[in-house]
Amino acid sequence: MTVFQFLTICDNLKRVLRTGWLLRGVPPSIAENVAAHSHTTAILAYLLALQTEEPVDLPQLLLMALIHDLPEAHIGDIPISAQRADPKIREAKEKAEDNAMQKILAYLPEKLQSALTVAWAAYCKGTSIEARLVEAADRLVTALHAAQLVKTGYSKETFQTFVTHAESTVAELKIPQVKEFIRELREVFTG
Amino acid sequence: MTVFQFLTICDNLKRVLRTGWLLRGVPPSIAENVAAHSHTTAILAYLLALQTEEPVDLPQLLLMALIHDLPEAHIGDIPISAQRADPKIREAKEKAEDNAMQKILAYLPEKLQSALTVAWAAYCKGTSIEARLVEAADRLVTALHAAQLVKTGYSKETFQTFVTHAESTVAELKIPQVKEFIRELREVFTG
Amino acid sequence: MTVFQFLTICDNLKRVLRTGWLLRGVPPSIAENVAAHSHTTAILAYLLALQTEEPVDLPQLLLMALIHDLPEAHIGDIPISAQRADPKIREAKEKAEDNAMQKILAYLPEKLQSALTVAWAAYCKGTSIEARLVEAADRLVTALHAAQLVKTGYSKETFQTFVTHAESTVAELKIPQVKEFIRELREVFTG
Amino acid sequence: MTVFQFLTICDNLKRVLRTGWLLRGVPPSIAENVAAHSHTTAILAYLLALQTEEPVDLPQLLLMALIHDLPEAHIGDIPISAQRADPKIREAKEKAEDNAMQKILAYLPEKLQSALTVAWAAYCKGTSIEARLVEAADRLVTALHAAQLVKTGYSKETFQTFVTHAESTVAELKIPQVKEFIRELREVFTG
Amino acid sequence: MTVFQFLTICDNLKRVLRTGWLLRGVPPSIAENVAAHSHTTAILAYLLALQTEEPVDLPQLLLMALIHDLPEAHIGDIPISAQRADPKIREAKEKAEDNAMQKILAYLPEKLQSALTVAWAAYCKGTSIEARLVEAADRLVTALHAAQLVKTGYSKETFQTFVTHAESTVAELKIPQVKEFIRELREVFTG
Amino acid sequence: MTVFQFLTICDNLKRVLRTGWLLRGVPPSIAENVAAHSHTTAILAYLLALQTEEPVDLPQLLLMALIHDLPEAHIGDIPISAQRADPKIREAKEKAEDNAMQKILAYLPEKLQSALTVAWAAYCKGTSIEARLVEAADRLVTALHAAQLVKTGYSKETFQTFVTHAESTVAELKIPQVKEFIRELREVFTG
Repeated sequence: MTVFQFLTICDNLKRVLRTGWLLRGVPPSIAENVAAHSHTTAILAYLLALQTEEPVDLPQLLLMALIHDLPEAHIGDIPISAQRADPKIREAKEKAEDNAMQKILAYLPEKLQSALTVAWAAYCKGTSIEARLVEAADRLVTALHAAQLVKTGYSKETFQTFVTHAESTVAELKIPQVKEFIRELREVFTG
Repeated sequence: MTVFQFLTICDNLKRVLRTGWLLRGVPPSIAENVAAHSHTTAILAYLLALQTEEPVDLPQLLLMALIHDLPEAHIGDIPISAQRADPKIREAKEKAEDNAMQKILAYLPEKLQSALTVAWAAYCKGTSIEARLVEAADRLVTALHAAQLVKTGYSKETFQTFVTHAESTVAELKIPQVKEFIRELREVFTG
Repeated sequence: MTVFQFLTICDNLKRVLRTGWLLRGVPPSIAENVAAHSHTTAILAYLLALQTEEPVDLPQLLLMALIHDLPEAHIGDIPISAQRADPKIREAKEKAEDNAMQKILAYLPEKLQSALTVAWAAYCKGTSIEARLVEAADRLVTALHAAQLVKTGYSKETFQTFVTHAESTVAELKIPQVKEFIRELREVFTG
Repeated sequence: MTVFQFLTICDNLKRVLRTGWLLRGVPPSIAENVAAHSHTTAILAYLLALQTEEPVDLPQLLLMALIHDLPEAHIGDIPISAQRADPKIREAKEKAEDNAMQKILAYLPEKLQSALTVAWAAYCKGTSIEARLVEAADRLVTALHAAQLVKTGYSKETFQTFVTHAESTVAELKIPQVKEFIRELREVFTG
Repeated sequence: MTVFQFLTICDNLKRVLRTGWLLRGVPPSIAENVAAHSHTTAILAYLLALQTEEPVDLPQLLLMALIHDLPEAHIGDIPISAQRADPKIREAKEKAEDNAMQKILAYLPEKLQSALTVAWAAYCKGTSIEARLVEAADRLVTALHAAQLVKTGYSKETFQTFVTHAESTVAELKIPQVKEFIRELREVFTG
Repeated sequence: MTVFQFLTICDNLKRVLRTGWLLRGVPPSIAENVAAHSHTTAILAYLLALQTEEPVDLPQLLLMALIHDLPEAHIGDIPISAQRADPKIREAKEKAEDNAMQKILAYLPEKLQSALTVAWAAYCKGTSIEARLVEAADRLVTALHAAQLVKTGYSKETFQTFVTHAESTVAELKIPQVKEFIRELREVFTG
């Protein structure tokens, strides 16, 4: 029950690769890890927050972005395709992640747990502005990384799905610069 | 619905790393992939079959060993720890894998599907001699690979669990040479 | 002289990279290893066997596919180009591989050696239906993996040779679906 | 001058490896990248902030942790040893990093630049509680990662320097749990 | 102060990756290391020397090529972009490299130091025929490696800069075959 | 028949891994490549030459060190174990390497071939002082790299053979500092 033990688990995220890349032909030696992905997500979530008109709880937003994939330190990155197969599987996956998160947070000294527990619960619920911004950032940086892969030779057809996916997620956000972001993304895939 | 499409999916297994290693500190660039693991499993399953007194359907045994992790080409390697958290999760995981396998097998021309479907069903049921030998081989080669990691500097404490795990699985098999195998494994961890 | 020692050598195949990729510009961190290649070969050999009209000894076929590159666990993967240089070199290479195989098989307890020795001898001879199907599967999955590399940006010109190579090997097999396989392969290289 | 261009540069940090590991024998395929390191730093900085009695500007703290190594996206990770050689070099390195940061921040639309500029300036100055906590977190997670390397076989002697380094940095912080953290770190190196 | 200690440091160059590739999207697992780069540089420097009409001190030329990046074993590869930012930074970088080289050479027994010290000084000065040939070889093999990356799918636009860079460096050398080299390089980028 | 084509083949050596490491459990992502190995060999060969009393043709010595493994750019690194199996195999391997070298050198414009042809022939003969120094350097840097692996956790027992091997090769050289080198090597393996 120490910060040291908790961070030792966080360190695992440096070795969990994002399955979405692997299953589309990116070799493990090239595939992005979850820790690095969470880093970019947090930066973009912050930039999006500066551009929205709604009031945003910035510390919660950043914390949420930093830990939104932390359960993967215990159970790995279960690909979205697995969840689509069956609504019950999506449900079970969400339950597995929640279970994993409870176990991981239990490594923290009690008085440090609450802020993380609150951020995680809000992320899972998905309705607060913080949760929606983190979700949008998550999808946008994934599409941006797909664009990087395309620049190094990967097939536009295969990776375009990430742009479409991001676009549908951010549609509801009223942030002008997100449109520009999507436009620049698209250029990589059509250019 | 062609062999080409089916094998293209099998090829994914070369990029799916075994999560059990990653979550114990083995970096992705070193972690074993599922295709290579299945190869060793099939060889050992065959050698165990030669030593058992029960009659074994060798083609089914080998096919089973070759495809026992094939669903991971769609949904990645969900670690055992995730399953232990909750019996419902174990159930859901099994369902997800079965779903994935159905989808993958559906890529095969119809007349080629049946043998694989039969082998997969028998593996999932787990009671036939073929299924038990494949299960034993799976655990033993995992422990053997753990032993290899220990020889390159990884901690004996962390990886010993794979030996214990293998030992309990093979206990019910009455194959003398399995005992010897376990003894040689143990030597690496205590020597 | 134990199964444990024998499998420890088999485990080497996970670290032997296929030289054909390396010498065409694929970095080691991306190049396929021999164990993973043998896994796909065995699966395809099995599927081809189901489609041929000749009677096939399935256990031997699968065993042959699993061990056909096992000598490389001792002597590495000597590229085909080396053999072409000189018929004497091809001969010497075959002798070196046979030598290596004898040494590796000698690690097995005596009563387990014979099946592997028989399968290896038949593979080397190359005339049985099992040997011809394994050879065909070997070439076809190599070409399929080349196609995967092309999809991630590698040059079609450089890797087309593997398709031509596969095509000439399978020409003598009278299996309709092999033609389809070749056609789908070609599409990747001309599309 | 768009968020897209700015994040494309941030994405570089996933490919910048921490030189401190490389120069102590860790191969590139295993060495931690700067993005992943910044992720863990931000989490620990947050946890330290919860335990200090001084008031902390949490958004600035987190932002600072996320971007404290961002100049390395332009100029790579110049190792500390280079700086020690000569005070003028340390000075020049700091100037180079500042230059790089100005260029990177200039990719952001103007109204998004100021928060990042302020956080960076405070980090460089190094006197605010936020800057000191980020510095402490930076050193502690580096030592924790060194401990992970030791567990996978790397020499205790070589990597102990990171613990000593962390210890001297955090000495001035009056946070009880930091002492515990150091104690657990030490155990890995003496155990 | 032994050859053993000196070579242990040289061995570091196998783990120092060339930053120019990393910052243009090449992942660490693919990026060339400095030792391998120095090897190709030495070979080309020798071939250029055979074609020039000026008298060349061959041992010095080869030694210079072998050690021209040796300071990077201490301070890593500081990218050229960092130096361009500011003339003072270029100056500081050169000083840091010189400092590092003095320290590295100090590991050698005294009587072995002088030849290396002389070669390094001549390289830094940059005016001798040996220094100019090594500089040209350095740029040409870098552009050639960029051409290799382009063949595996990397963007021509991004890497063309290395050809331009090489071209301007070799312009002053009056070696006919260098023109041919540049022409063949260009073909990769325009073909 | 251009320098460009010749160097494109030399570039292959960056992707040819030294089989001796792979077959002793070092994963490809960590195993040294032949280009980097040749670089260290050339540096040590030079330092040995400075310490011998016999007159040494330095340009030839350095060239020989740089190209002594160049045939591996065509045929890969055939491990020594393969050669030991049978004297005929050693002979065949030497012939294969010589064949490969002739082909590679044929890419060079005619007037550049002769120096390399002479150096290669002298290396193969193995009796000149240059050839003996390169051979000694080759073995010593291999043992030094083995020592580096031991420092990162690899087993002393497995890699000690490289020290014994180096020791027997250098015994005939009358260079005092070689003894010291061997002593420092031994310390890593016994300490």
